[in-house]
Amino acid sequence: MSVASNPYPGLTTLREGEQFANAFFTTEKKIEIAKALDDFGVDYIELTSPVASEQSRRDCEAICKLGLKAKILTHIRCHMDDARVAVETGVDGVDVVIGTSQFLRKFSHGKDMNYIAQSAIEVIEFVKSKGIEIRFSSEDSFRSDIVDLLNIYRTVDKIGVNRVGIADTVGCANPRQVYELVKTLKSVVSCDIECHFHNDTGCAIANAYTALEAGAKLIDVSVLGIGERNGITPLGALMARMITADRDYVLSKYKLHKLRDLENLVADAVQVNIPFNNPITGFCAFTHKAGIHAKAILANPSTYEILNPSDFGLTRYIHFANRLTGWNAIKSRVDQLNLNLTDDQCKEVTAKIKLLGDVRQLNIDDVDSIIKDYHAEQQTTPALKPVANGAEDVEDEPEAKKQKTN
Amino acid sequence: MSVASNPYPGLTTLREGEQFANAFFTTEKKIEIAKALDDFGVDYIELTSPVASEQSRRDCEAICKLGLKAKILTHIRCHMDDARVAVETGVDGVDVVIGTSQFLRKFSHGKDMNYIAQSAIEVIEFVKSKGIEIRFSSEDSFRSDIVDLLNIYRTVDKIGVNRVGIADTVGCANPRQVYELVKTLKSVVSCDIECHFHNDTGCAIANAYTALEAGAKLIDVSVLGIGERNGITPLGALMARMITADRDYVLSKYKLHKLRDLENLVADAVQVNIPFNNPITGFCAFTHKAGIHAKAILANPSTYEILNPSDFGLTRYIHFANRLTGWNAIKSRVDQLNLNLTDDQCKEVTAKIKLLGDVRQLNIDDVDSIIKDYHAEQQTTPALKPVANGAEDVEDEPEAKKQKTN
Repeated sequence: MSVASNPYPGLTTLREGEQFANAFFTTEKKIEIAKALDDFGVDYIELTSPVASEQSRRDCEAICKLGLKAKILTHIRCHMDDARVAVETGVDGVDVVIGTSQFLRKFSHGKDMNYIAQSAIEVIEFVKSKGIEIRFSSEDSFRSDIVDLLNIYRTVDKIGVNRVGIADTVGCANPRQVYELVKTLKSVVSCDIECHFHNDTGCAIANAYTALEAGAKLIDVSVLGIGERNGITPLGALMARMITADRDYVLSKYKLHKLRDLENLVADAVQVNIPFNNPITGFCAFTHKAGIHAKAILANPSTYEILNPSDFGLTRYIHFANRLTGWNAIKSRVDQLNLNLTDDQCKEVTAKIKLLGDVRQLNIDDVDSIIKDYHAEQQTTPALKPVANGAEDVEDEPEAKKQKTN
Repeated sequence: MSVASNPYPGLTTLREGEQFANAFFTTEKKIEIAKALDDFGVDYIELTSPVASEQSRRDCEAICKLGLKAKILTHIRCHMDDARVAVETGVDGVDVVIGTSQFLRKFSHGKDMNYIAQSAIEVIEFVKSKGIEIRFSSEDSFRSDIVDLLNIYRTVDKIGVNRVGIADTVGCANPRQVYELVKTLKSVVSCDIECHFHNDTGCAIANAYTALEAGAKLIDVSVLGIGERNGITPLGALMARMITADRDYVLSKYKLHKLRDLENLVADAVQVNIPFNNPITGFCAFTHKAGIHAKAILANPSTYEILNPSDFGLTRYIHFANRLTGWNAIKSRVDQLNLNLTDDQCKEVTAKIKLLGDVRQLNIDDVDSIIKDYHAEQQTTPALKPVANGAEDVEDEPEAKKQKTN
């Protein structure tokens, strides 16, 4: 797997994230989040437009004055009025966006591509004259005419923007479309390419990764993916994806062990729970349950883990208190309890545990007391002789009865 | 966009889903879920192996006797002991799986490819002799040797399996790899191709869709994606993705308006909340907040929606009680309240709302009382004259002050 060298997420928790239904960030909370993002190691932090409201402007100025390592950007419409306010806030760069799809040209701003190009040139020249970064992005790029898109990107690239942006504003794109568009755009412009993917159809993470494969450099993300509707590419999931491609790079650049705190900070601020199935930090992302999984994980975690939980300051868990458990998982628990049972005894006690697991949901105490009772019985009766273990090394959803195959 | 004709999800909520950390399904709950899946319109329901536990076997028999329209499958290891038990349960087909990656061959079952092929042939011939369906799948396919894989798939295809399965057991695959592997496999076998994707790095939905583009026919899904670790491709998200490709087909085949009930049924059974960012049924999946979005949505919902909420029995919501709101959203609320304000008046009251929205989180009552107070004031003072609306048709993150551009 190869992706563009040194790609990175740009954090838009305080812009796109503010468009999340539940988001209301006080100045103090914005500053706390900005500092946490900076500490995590991100390169860019994007803020709500300073023309959105008076407080939005003041917050933008306040965050610019924090002296963070990350560059501070703000996100504005493609007009001079917005640009004039934006450059006065002290930001390191301005992200300009305008709708280019027929839908948005007709029902949002009502302008044609010539008007868009002229506005873009005026705004870009102005922002550049202030000596700060400028990105030009189309909106709803995947429902825009490809010739229109390439024309406007080539125009702004020639003026000298730092980045051009592609945005899947409605979440309609699929990975193969993303790959084609980014590849084509890369052949047209010399500046960096930024991508922004909404998650309406669940493809925002894969689209982001595929864009990196096609040569995009910067991916817009937010903590937990918060944004309009059901949001955009989440920071954590993109980290999960990127670390499978270049572990050393990701480990050297980001404080991954702070991901969970960062997610909790934002989740609390917008009053949501971490989704149960969240990559990396979902409560069971490193929990292994079926007997075959548990057995192999105990032998070598790479068998059923593409991510190493310790990279994120997390630990794996073998879920043995259930009817799908297997004797290898139970044997491991017996060892943890400092008890001494043979493999055959472990299989026998496993059968007892599965029997109770068929009747009701088990907890660890249930299993531990079955094991301890069984162990106590063994002490009062002659120990079973250990038997040769050969046919037992296949363990799937584990057996209630002894296997006879092979 | 084109995908294989008439592709479909196979529902493994009662197999993979039972491997979810929180899952403990009683017989009654399994039957309730199986009936709900059948009613939704799924073709296949996969159940936990009958050798996992005694109750698993009895549940399998009970569900086979329900007379559902969906075919009932069970999922077993590739050995005769399991196969003998499986065919006696009354299932319509058996899904056989064996680990083919070096990791699993070394740390799980310890067998070589010759052994795997021999076991597969024996089990497949036996299941076929019973006149029921048979699928053969490798496990951890994306970390398996491609030559080994193609060899075993060609072998089992020649014997006459109904389907071969590819499984991204550890969630490492990305869409372009999926496309290549499915395309290659399609050139080697004549049977249908089934795919199973774990979601550790957030690509399970996109991988599933890309597999369909490459010609896969059946995708393993579970309700809410529940499964080992953080699970697999969720049914709802795959519906979202598929409906963007072929709306008529999806609408004709599935009772999409029952998706929310189905998800709630399973969420309650395994004691999780619907993730806030769940495609389709997340609480804000059809909520529009920023002024520019609200304005365009009011003019034409397709501007910012690739899914139609009414297809799922849901409704969209314009979130106007916040500082990012715009005067078009407020005007729409004024109309809902049956009040009469000019555009300029709407802009003026919007500025008041944004001012309060800067101070604290707003609710609908806050906004309604600001609007009503403002409206009452207007009745006691001479009405403002409506002004020509020209420069106002660009509305992004909406302005606190009047725009002068253009």
